[in-house]
Amino acid sequence: MFDHTSRISRLQDLMGETGIDAVLLTAGADMPYFSGYSAMPLERITAFVVGREEDPTLFVPRLEAPRVAKGNFEIVAWGETDDPIGLVVKRLGSSSTVAVGETMWSSFLLDFQSRMGGVEWSVASDLTRELRMRKEPGEIDRLRRAAEATDRVLARIPSEVQFAGRAQSAVAADFARMTVEEGHDRSWFTIIASGPDSASPHHETGSRQIEEGDMVVCDFGGIIDGYCSDVTRTFVVGAPTPKQQEVHDIVVSANVAGRAAIAPGVSCQEIDAAARRVIEDGGYGRYFIHRTGHGIGLEGHEHPYIVEGNDLALEAGMTFSVEPGVYIPGEFGVRVEDIVACGRESVDDLNRADRSLVEVG
Amino acid sequence: MFDHTSRISRLQDLMGETGIDAVLLTAGADMPYFSGYSAMPLERITAFVVGREEDPTLFVPRLEAPRVAKGNFEIVAWGETDDPIGLVVKRLGSSSTVAVGETMWSSFLLDFQSRMGGVEWSVASDLTRELRMRKEPGEIDRLRRAAEATDRVLARIPSEVQFAGRAQSAVAADFARMTVEEGHDRSWFTIIASGPDSASPHHETGSRQIEEGDMVVCDFGGIIDGYCSDVTRTFVVGAPTPKQQEVHDIVVSANVAGRAAIAPGVSCQEIDAAARRVIEDGGYGRYFIHRTGHGIGLEGHEHPYIVEGNDLALEAGMTFSVEPGVYIPGEFGVRVEDIVACGRESVDDLNRADRSLVEVG
Repeated sequence: MFDHTSRISRLQDLMGETGIDAVLLTAGADMPYFSGYSAMPLERITAFVVGREEDPTLFVPRLEAPRVAKGNFEIVAWGETDDPIGLVVKRLGSSSTVAVGETMWSSFLLDFQSRMGGVEWSVASDLTRELRMRKEPGEIDRLRRAAEATDRVLARIPSEVQFAGRAQSAVAADFARMTVEEGHDRSWFTIIASGPDSASPHHETGSRQIEEGDMVVCDFGGIIDGYCSDVTRTFVVGAPTPKQQEVHDIVVSANVAGRAAIAPGVSCQEIDAAARRVIEDGGYGRYFIHRTGHGIGLEGHEHPYIVEGNDLALEAGMTFSVEPGVYIPGEFGVRVEDIVACGRESVDDLNRADRSLVEVG
Repeated sequence: MFDHTSRISRLQDLMGETGIDAVLLTAGADMPYFSGYSAMPLERITAFVVGREEDPTLFVPRLEAPRVAKGNFEIVAWGETDDPIGLVVKRLGSSSTVAVGETMWSSFLLDFQSRMGGVEWSVASDLTRELRMRKEPGEIDRLRRAAEATDRVLARIPSEVQFAGRAQSAVAADFARMTVEEGHDRSWFTIIASGPDSASPHHETGSRQIEEGDMVVCDFGGIIDGYCSDVTRTFVVGAPTPKQQEVHDIVVSANVAGRAAIAPGVSCQEIDAAARRVIEDGGYGRYFIHRTGHGIGLEGHEHPYIVEGNDLALEAGMTFSVEPGVYIPGEFGVRVEDIVACGRESVDDLNRADRSLVEVG
């Protein structure tokens, strides 16, 4: 398992360097990263407070206290008629610089702000990302296991899943089921976007019937031991048209170029540019309407973001997606996405599933 | 479908009464309630801005714009290298009182705060709950359909699901599958807590093998057309002990008493007290460690909360859970939960599944 005590020490070092007196986390991925405990993102607040010196404190709703395993923190269980915000404020004491979890509900933050005048509030992920985006070997192992599980799903698709004549939602259910069968604890999301819907990158899987000739963007992932998978392949129902094949070839080339550019010291925006250039050169640049990728770990989207303007230099151990796409409104879309780690010299491919345009029935 | 324009008008009326210049919503249930659009809760901000007079504006990531159906709002699609917070700040103009969505990420709120000095920030749910907790007939219809679907799942459990000798997670998968089979668009959550785990109200379903003699708290729900179901029954594997039967009888009586107390004008805390009194009189009061219920609708937990200290008077059309429980550490727990609406004179039971202690294999 992971060494949460060491992570807390490193966070406290960063707090000292940046002048943060306290880090205040609620439900979200930072909490399990530093404590091993995942809170439920509900209206009853769970709060994990890290000061510069002392051991952390976990404030948890009394009815959820039995969920908490012992850790390197004090546990305070609050009851239904207690004032949990007041308890946390008391623990924060005279902290004058408090960094709060990125996903903390604004209702909680406004309550803290109203009770603690004069405090300078900031976002804890400015600190926590410095640790979380540099994966430990055990984290990369989990991401690799998750990616390999999705590769096994993809290998089964052409022979086991019927596309033509079925609703997107029915195909999505097959993907979700196989995601669990291949080793995930649970499915995280499934986008099945067919025909003109495939030109919508974040299409909401619906009842549209998949038809012969459709391109079908299949983007899905699950969670293994807290870590996410996220992969996309685009299939074609029956034989592709020359344009479908051309666009798919270009997107695969962009994916290859993006991954080939990965090495320690290369900036995130250079990876984006390497993939984008291939699509621009192919004449479809205006249809690549999103960044090339996002970090992945405890969250499906996290730092580093592979986007123009991000001059962060890659380091060995950073994990992210490379997912160029082309989306032609009213016609079709293509996306080919893999999860990678930056290795010591070049890319370490976590996904290795076939990237060619595969025909399905 | 729902009349979003009318809902916006009523919100604008409330804004006028309370002196709020702008409501600023991000991903969360308020957004679909007022716009029909559900944003993805990710790092790319989607923002729905309602001023006092003019039509609302929806700011959406460009790659998600194809997901948005036309509505009574202007759409602004922002690109990957744009500054979406800046665009929203510009739209907010000289607003000096801004109410933000309860679940808005704190990272977004802190960014808004840093760019808009002198603004008084508040929580939009102080207004939106006034509308959302008074359900329209079409909303109650959906909640009833969702509740009836879970009742059908429960009716199938004794004959179709094997408990003894199987992992909690395997039984949970059966519940989730049947939740979809009976008409939900998707499963929302499943808690299967057996034996001593049943004494943990929010137990995280795990690999524990269910054994003969276990009490098994089964709490699950799904989503139909955006609306949630949430029901709990406690089964026993084989014949119950006298203590198991006694505690179950008391909890059912508390559930009955809580529902029987429901009528317009009765306060939320009176419902809590009515259920709690039965458990206290039965001698198990110290083991009922949570409130009696929570509102339900677009969110699984929302206003009104059925808890001591909440003197809100029920009105016809409010929908919530009644879910007393007894949790004896190291032994077992029991919870019996139903979703109800407050009717014109008394309770309108949305769940009607058998509440007796049913033996399973």
